[in-house]
Amino acid sequence: MATTQEISTIVNGVPVCDLFATIDAVKTTPSLAKFKFRISNQWQGGSCNLSTVGPFTGANQELAHPRPFVLEADEPEVLLGRDLAANPVEYLLHALASCVTTSMVYHAAKRGIHIHQVESFIEGDLDLYGFLDLDEGIRKGFREIRMHFKMDADVPEERLQEVFELGTGHSPVFDSLTNGVPVKVTAEARRFA
Amino acid sequence: MATTQEISTIVNGVPVCDLFATIDAVKTTPSLAKFKFRISNQWQGGSCNLSTVGPFTGANQELAHPRPFVLEADEPEVLLGRDLAANPVEYLLHALASCVTTSMVYHAAKRGIHIHQVESFIEGDLDLYGFLDLDEGIRKGFREIRMHFKMDADVPEERLQEVFELGTGHSPVFDSLTNGVPVKVTAEARRFA
Repeated sequence: MATTQEISTIVNGVPVCDLFATIDAVKTTPSLAKFKFRISNQWQGGSCNLSTVGPFTGANQELAHPRPFVLEADEPEVLLGRDLAANPVEYLLHALASCVTTSMVYHAAKRGIHIHQVESFIEGDLDLYGFLDLDEGIRKGFREIRMHFKMDADVPEERLQEVFELGTGHSPVFDSLTNGVPVKVTAEARRFA
Repeated sequence: MATTQEISTIVNGVPVCDLFATIDAVKTTPSLAKFKFRISNQWQGGSCNLSTVGPFTGANQELAHPRPFVLEADEPEVLLGRDLAANPVEYLLHALASCVTTSMVYHAAKRGIHIHQVESFIEGDLDLYGFLDLDEGIRKGFREIRMHFKMDADVPEERLQEVFELGTGHSPVFDSLTNGVPVKVTAEARRFA
C-alpha cells in the first residue's frame, strides 16, 4: 500500500510504518484485534497485596511479557496500611493518565502530528463516608476525576484541544472508566495447603 | 464506646480497634472522610510514560507518602512498544483486583470474619478494532471483565458469596469502573525549556 510505504519514519517514538501495517492487517483479519489481558493477585495480609501481570491473548496468539511485572498495593497509614506502595485508587489514576497519553501519542503519530513533551496531573475525589457504610447515598467510588495536560507539540494553540481529544477519544481506560464496564465475579472456597 | 474497646486484636492484618476509632471519628466529623488522591505523569516517548504518586489530602490534612512511588507504563511489542512495564489496561485490572481484595479484607475484619488466604484472577476483553478507528460501533474500552476469587476463610462455604460481596460492594475501584466516573479534562500548550 503506497500510503504505508511513504511513511517510514518514527513519529513521537511510534513506528508509524508498523502502525499502518497493523491497521491494514486488522482490516483484513478483524480477529487480530481481539485481546485478553490478565493479572493474578495474591493477598499478603492487611492492606498489602500484589498482582503479577500474566500472559495475554492478542493477534490470534498467546503472548507473554519478557518478564513478569509485579505490582504491589498498600494503603497509607491514615487508612490503616503500612504505606509500602501506591494504593488501588492511585493505580487507577495512573492507568487513566498513561492510557490517555499513549492513545494521544499513537493517534497523533498516525496523523503526522509531532509531539515533543507531555505532562499530566490527575486528581480524584473520594468520600470514604460511603466506604465506611455511614451513608448509603454516598458512592464508594470516585465522585469526579480531573486531568490537566501540558503539552509541547507542533500544532497551533487553537488545535491543541483536538490533539487531546485524540487521547480521550481513543483511550481504552478513559472509555472504560467514564462509560463503565460489566464486571462478572465468581468465587470458590479453597483450602490452601 | 464499649464495642470498640472489646475488639483490640488485629484481624486479617487490619488493626480493628483503629478501624472502629476511624469510623467513630468520621461519624462525628464527616469531613475527615474526604480524600483527594493525585498523580502526575510524564511521557517518556512512544508508549513509555511514568507516573509519580503525589501527596494526597485526607482526614483534613495534606499528607505525603514516605517516598515517591513511581509507576511505569509501556506496551508489548505486538502493540508497538518495548514491553518494559505493564500496560495501562493491565494497571486497571491490578487496581480492580487490589481494591476489591483490600475492601473485602477490611470489611470482613470489621465483622470479625477471619480470612487466611485470598487469590484472584482477572481477565478483560478488549477489541482494538475500535481503538484503530475501523468501526465506530466497537467500544474503545473493555467489553467485559471477569474476576475469579479463591479464598480460605473461617466461614461456611454457603456464606462465601456474602464475604466476596463485602469486597465488590465496598470497593471504590469496583464502583468507579462498573458505574462510571465523570472525568474532566483541561489542557494547555507549554513550551518546556
